[in-house]
Parts: sequence; C-alpha cells; structure tokens
Amino acid sequence: MKVRIPKEIRVVNIGLPDFAADLKEAGVDVVHLEWRPPAGGDARVLSLLERLAVKKEEIDSANQKALGRILEGDPTLIDLGLAAEVIPNYPERTLLHAGPPLSWEEMSGPVRGAVIGAVLFEGWAQSPEEAERLAAAGEIKFAPCHHFQAVGPMAGVVAPSMPVFVIENRAFGNKAYASLNEGLGKVLRFGAYGEEVLTRLTWLKDDFYPILKDALGSLEGISINNITSQALQMGDECHNRNKAATALLLRELAPALVETDYKPAAIRSALEFIQGNEHFYLNISMAACKAMLDPARDIPWSTLVVAMARNGTEFGIQLSGLGQRWFTAPALPVEGLYFPGYGPEDANPDLGDSAITETCGIGGFAMASSPAIVQFVGGSSNDALNYTREMYKITLGENGNYTIPNLNFRGTPTGIDLRKVLAKDILPVINTGIAHKEAGIGQIGAGVVNPPRDCFVQALEKMVREMPKK
Amino acid sequence: MKVRIPKEIRVVNIGLPDFAADLKEAGVDVVHLEWRPPAGGDARVLSLLERLAVKKEEIDSANQKALGRILEGDPTLIDLGLAAEVIPNYPERTLLHAGPPLSWEEMSGPVRGAVIGAVLFEGWAQSPEEAERLAAAGEIKFAPCHHFQAVGPMAGVVAPSMPVFVIENRAFGNKAYASLNEGLGKVLRFGAYGEEVLTRLTWLKDDFYPILKDALGSLEGISINNITSQALQMGDECHNRNKAATALLLRELAPALVETDYKPAAIRSALEFIQGNEHFYLNISMAACKAMLDPARDIPWSTLVVAMARNGTEFGIQLSGLGQRWFTAPALPVEGLYFPGYGPEDANPDLGDSAITETCGIGGFAMASSPAIVQFVGGSSNDALNYTREMYKITLGENGNYTIPNLNFRGTPTGIDLRKVLAKDILPVINTGIAHKEAGIGQIGAGVVNPPRDCFVQALEKMVREMPKK
Repeated sequence: MKVRIPKEIRVVNIGLPDFAADLKEAGVDVVHLEWRPPAGGDARVLSLLERLAVKKEEIDSANQKALGRILEGDPTLIDLGLAAEVIPNYPERTLLHAGPPLSWEEMSGPVRGAVIGAVLFEGWAQSPEEAERLAAAGEIKFAPCHHFQAVGPMAGVVAPSMPVFVIENRAFGNKAYASLNEGLGKVLRFGAYGEEVLTRLTWLKDDFYPILKDALGSLEGISINNITSQALQMGDECHNRNKAATALLLRELAPALVETDYKPAAIRSALEFIQGNEHFYLNISMAACKAMLDPARDIPWSTLVVAMARNGTEFGIQLSGLGQRWFTAPALPVEGLYFPGYGPEDANPDLGDSAITETCGIGGFAMASSPAIVQFVGGSSNDALNYTREMYKITLGENGNYTIPNLNFRGTPTGIDLRKVLAKDILPVINTGIAHKEAGIGQIGAGVVNPPRDCFVQALEKMVREMPKK
Repeated sequence: MKVRIPKEIRVVNIGLPDFAADLKEAGVDVVHLEWRPPAGGDARVLSLLERLAVKKEEIDSANQKALGRILEGDPTLIDLGLAAEVIPNYPERTLLHAGPPLSWEEMSGPVRGAVIGAVLFEGWAQSPEEAERLAAAGEIKFAPCHHFQAVGPMAGVVAPSMPVFVIENRAFGNKAYASLNEGLGKVLRFGAYGEEVLTRLTWLKDDFYPILKDALGSLEGISINNITSQALQMGDECHNRNKAATALLLRELAPALVETDYKPAAIRSALEFIQGNEHFYLNISMAACKAMLDPARDIPWSTLVVAMARNGTEFGIQLSGLGQRWFTAPALPVEGLYFPGYGPEDANPDLGDSAITETCGIGGFAMASSPAIVQFVGGSSNDALNYTREMYKITLGENGNYTIPNLNFRGTPTGIDLRKVLAKDILPVINTGIAHKEAGIGQIGAGVVNPPRDCFVQALEKMVREMPKK
C-alpha cells in the first residue's frame, strides 16, 4: 500500500474551541466549527427525544398554536385592588409565594423573612417570634402565586390585604396580578421585615394605592405591550432593568394623577415614589408576561414552557401540554456581581417568579436590548448580544412587537421549546437579583442564572410516559 | 537578468475596498488595508497642515486646555425667562436665527417662514405680506443666536417675547439659552406660520411657560449632564432622538409641577404637552452643549471646533483659536429618509444650530448609543456603531460622563480637531431633521449630513495666515 503524505495540512476543529486556539497559536491553518453532541451526549435523553419524535407533527402544531397565543397577547394595566378582593378564590389566612409549592420547613431564609413580615402586616401576629410560631404550627397556609394567576419577584409573598396590579390580556380576557414594587434596600421581597419595611407596606396600601387606582380609573387602561416595546429600544430588558419602562409609565400616569381628588402633597409623594424606584415597572412587566403566557397553557402535546419559577429552594417549570404539574429540582446559585461586603457564600439560591419574563422572551432573552445591564449583572456588552443570540436556538419564534435595535430590529426569541433545550443542550438564561440567604438582610447582588437541566429532563420523561403505548 | 516567478501570489490591497472584493471573488488571497491618502490627496491642504505643524506644541497644549474645559462642564437647567428679559444685550426689534449671519435676501424658504411667524407673534405686522414687507425693507434686524449665547433648532428663530430655557454651566458660571420645543407637525422652526403655529406659541408663552418656571423655581436646578448621560444608555443620542431624556426630564419635573399654584387642569395640560413631544429635550440638550462649549472659546492656537451651525443657506464653523469669525460654505443636502409624499427635490439644504450637539460629542457622534435611530435617519444598527467609531479619529478625547454601552462604555468622541478632520479627510457626521424648502410646510424627513469640507480648509488657511512670519 502506498501512503500519500499531504504537503499541507488544514484542520477543521469541531466542538471544544480550545483545540483550535492551540493550533492557531502554533501557526496551523484551522477553522473552528461550533458543535455540541446532541443532547449534550446524554444517551438516555437522546433516546427519550427520539421516542417523542413519533409525535412530531402533533407537537409542532400544538407549539405553533401555543406560540401564536403568546404573540397575540395584549396585556393592559386596567386597575389595582386588594389581593383578597380581586384575585378569584383567594383562600382564607393564606399567603402566596414565588415558585412551586413549598412548606414552612422547606423555606429558605429570605422567604421565611417575607412570610414573617406579611404575617405582621396582616396583624395575625404581634412579633416576629409569634409569626414564626404560627407559620411553623401550620396556622398560616401557603400557596404559589402561580396557582392564582399571580406573580411576585424574589420571595414573591402576597398577603390578602396587600394591593396588587390587575393586568387584563385584552386578546383573551384573562387576568393576572402582581404586588407593588417596594423599591430597593430593606424590602419584604428580599426577606426584610423590620419597622421600615412594614411602614412602607402600610403607606403603599393606605396612601399610594388609592391615588394610583383613582388615576388609572380615569384612563382607558395602559397598554403594556406599548411600554415594553418602547423600553426594549431604550436599554431595558424589562426584568433586571426597568428604568425606561418606569419613566414611560410615569409619563402616562402623571397627567391623570394630577387630576385626582387627592392633595398636591400626596400626589407629589406618589410621583416621587415612582420617580425614585427604577424597578417600579418590574412587577407590572411580570404580571403582563403571566397574562400573555396563561392562554398558551393546556394545549395537548405542546412542549412549550409556560412557567419558570423559583421558591428559593427549588426551581420549577410547567409545560403547556402537561397541565398544572411542576417539574422541580434544587435551585442553583447565581453567577453575578455582589454589592461591597458580600460574596457567593452569603447568597440564597435562585429565587422568585420573575423568570416569567424570560419565559415570555424578555429579561435575559432580550439582553441584547440592554447592553448597559452588564454593569449590574456582569460581562461585556458583547456578552449581552450573545445571550440573546443563543436563546434563538431554543425558542419557537420571534415577537414582532418586541424588537431589538442592536440585532437590526429582530424580534425577541419567544416560546421556549423543551425539545430544543434538551436536544441542543442550551439552558434558558435568566437575569436575576441575588438575596442574602438569611432573613431580614435584603439584596446583595445581581447576576445571571440557568434553570437546573433536570427540570427539563423530568418534563420530557413525563411527556414520553403520556404517549399512547403501541 | 534572471526573473523569478513566484509560485503563489498574495495581495495586500490598500485604499479602495472594491479592488479587494473583486480579487476575493476571483479566489485570490487578499488582505484589505484601510488607507486614505493624507489630506485626501489635496497637496495644498497637506502643505498648509505641514506649515501649521511648526506650532504643534502650542496647538496641542491649547487643545488640551480647550477639551478640558468642555469635559469639566456642568450644564444645569436653572430657569426660564422671556428672551429679551434674560438674554444679555438683546437688541431692539431683532430676531435671532440659526447658523452664521445672513440677510433676508439670502434666507431660504423655511427661515423666511419662521421670520414671518415671529413677526406676527410679536405683533409687528398684522399679515404675512406685511411681515415680509417689513423684513425686506430692513425694518427687522437679524442676528445669529450664537452671538447671544443662544441656540435654536432648524430655523432657530427667537423673538424678544418668546420664553427661553436658561442653562447655567456651573463649572464656569456662563449661561446659554434656547427656545422651547414646539413638537412636530406644523411648527415655526420648520418655517410654518399659520394660525395653529401662532396659537401654540401663544399658549407656550401665556400658559405653559409660567407653570414650568414656577416648578423649576422650587428645584435646585436640574443637572443636564445627569439626564444626558442616562439617556445615552437608553437609546438616545440627544439630537434626533430625545425620547428617554424627555421622559427622564418629565420624571424630575412632575413632582414639582404638582405643587405649583396652578389649577390641576392647567398642570395636566403642561404634563401632556411634554408627554406628547419626544423632542422636548432637544432644545435643552442644545443649550447645554452651547454652555459646555463656550468656555472652550478664545484659547490662542486651539484648533478645536467650538461651533458648527447652519442657516439654511450656509454652513458655518467657528474655531477656538480664531475668535468670533465664521468660516462658511454653501450648506449641503441631507441624505436620509423622507416622509411619504416627499423626496430630495423638496428638501431645504441643511439647517439649524442643532449641530452644536455633534460639536459637543453627542448627536451623530454618539449614534452607537442609539441603534434605534436608524429607523428615522436610515441605515443599519451597525452603521450607527461605525459612525461613532469614525468620529474617534477626528476628536481630541472622550467624555467619561457620557458612556456608550454598545462600545463597552467608552466615552463619547469629543472635541473636533480641525487638523484631524483635514489630515484624515473624515468629516463630522451630523444627525438632522429635513425641512421643506418652501415656507409654511414643515418637516419632511430626517437623515445624516456632513459639513462642507471647505469650511475647514478656510479655517486652516486663516490659522496659517495668523502664524508669525519668520
């Protein structure tokens, strides 16, 4: 046999980019091809995906229907009300919380802190110790916000007499609810429950909420699609950056606030509260996403993710085709930037319903809209572009209402497909705040996090089990 | 002689990229090197630049001083007042206008239209015909805004009883002035002078201005550096896009407006006017730039450009080292996007003092901050990045207060150096509105424009003539 030795060698490197870099350094002509083994090389997941592929046509069609419902959504801020009065079937002596269901025993520090604060706010106990005793004795009931069409950032605790925003999805008639954002510093959602926190919650209920409700009453509703789409062109991603959206909302509200029957000083305080809180829009953004995603639920065979949420202990997802069932795994730590004096050892695991924004294609999915956010969550402005580019690989479509100037006005990547997540081994990217792991301290940083892959694997297993046996 | 024929040819292409593209298409290995001949190949300009280089040390040091003064600027919105009452030495029966000096005979359509409107507004004439007669007879005097520390967008006409913003540069104590922005549609600055225009001007003076003045009086001044720096991270470039800046300004003003002594309905109208006009901030941005640039004037030997302005007929520039002298050339047509029904044949040449924003390093120089603006002025989001990258080549420094997220928070390119413009043959890029060439019609588009190169050549000639003879 004659062996021919080539005069020149050119290399195509597949997979790990490090090999290509080494060769390039050594002067070898090398082309790098981005490639990952299907399903991250997990043979079991690959086999499950192959079994599910039998239903490809049904699934594709169900997903298109589900995606269509999200894209048609028309979330509108129409009102505010007290939680127990406006949220249908709000149960007695119950606190709602972020993420999938959990008991007092399972709760992390900041969620316990928020529960203590909410119990004190409701007057069910007179001291933090008494509040803890009541909660531990099972005398306070807990339920996920998501089970009541509500969402809450971080601990996400909603109590019956707290005011909530009412968002109506005018395309489908469904409603969603979210608490009012308290601002930064010591706040209930990060597990603080001191005097300052309770005083603010009382002011929000007794002074702020009635004025805002009155002003909203004189408007025809505020289109949240309209504000979010503008804000995405103004450096927000409407999860961890809501600066433009809050300013645009205030612009809509201010003229109506002026003509309410309240005293100028009270109206001024209300305006200054919104002016001083650049996250004010976050809770509205979240409720709008919830209102957009709910009509995409319960479409048989759809592998579209309709909820991603964290209770501080576990991360849970829900799938359109699999009803109200949660697929959970332990919540992961967040990679990010910490405020001075804090570090990863102080951090609570991932927390909050705010991943509803990513589920709806904004937040981390729209980071390309928000290069300035890297100052808050870490990375370079190019990373922000790349996060969004990656998310196109695991989503079903693009939202033409939400366009990204930095990507030449491409729509935001929308509708997470369970199959794509696992087949391409790319997890959703979520922008998030970081809470201290102990109750009462508050926010200590912000960063980027992924859901545990296992939530998706479990959902895939369930989907395959649901398939008719031959 | 023995000729060696090489086995392989590799090409380095210098200059025009088309040659490289042709070779590449033909399969030739080619590297393109960006290169332009010095001074665009203009031997006379090159020789003038070489003569000026004798003074290099003096010029460099003068330019650093001039740049430093710009970067130290602290423009603050402190008050409003009627032009003749607050602008020092406002002359009798005079209208101010944009750009370098010009007579009624030289005025283009939209400037004449604005003059007619201003004469009617002042009550100096009862009909447009009478106003024209007065102007043509020399009974109205004209002077550039710039000669009175003022600036005006487009026609830029300021009349004695019009309200103006007062900006104080708190680092140097100097003040600058600008008229109030009327919004879009039929407006004086684009040369419209009908009933609607005059009614709005009267409302601005009698109803809007007193409320705004009152509200501002209760504040300690509004930092314009603060708003502009935020807006540059929110998709504005603060010349042709002022959406975020206007919302941020309204956010600052609203609480103070509420507590003025005016009726709620009047305050509501004022808020709604700002809410409905996303260019409201433009005139403030312009006056702030003027206030920042004026302290950089009159530094001997500085080749820093302290003003670029257009009167609709001519483009003029002023240089720090050459006093109040204007270097002018015919204003160029604007390349851009036209509103439906209009085209380049309807357009007036380049117009307005708003190029003061580019002179100060924002506007077209900060287009990388504002990828969304390409929908208004044309091009792709990548073009927006490239415009800013080019401007670093002709400027003396970067403004650390104004950072660009898309360029990893690099400061805006600031301080145009006459020498660099001519040596590198790169002209400043200006974002601008396009006015119809006839009086009374208004805005018909927006786009990008350059100053005529000849303004810079004339300034260079003058600079060389000023040099001491040996």
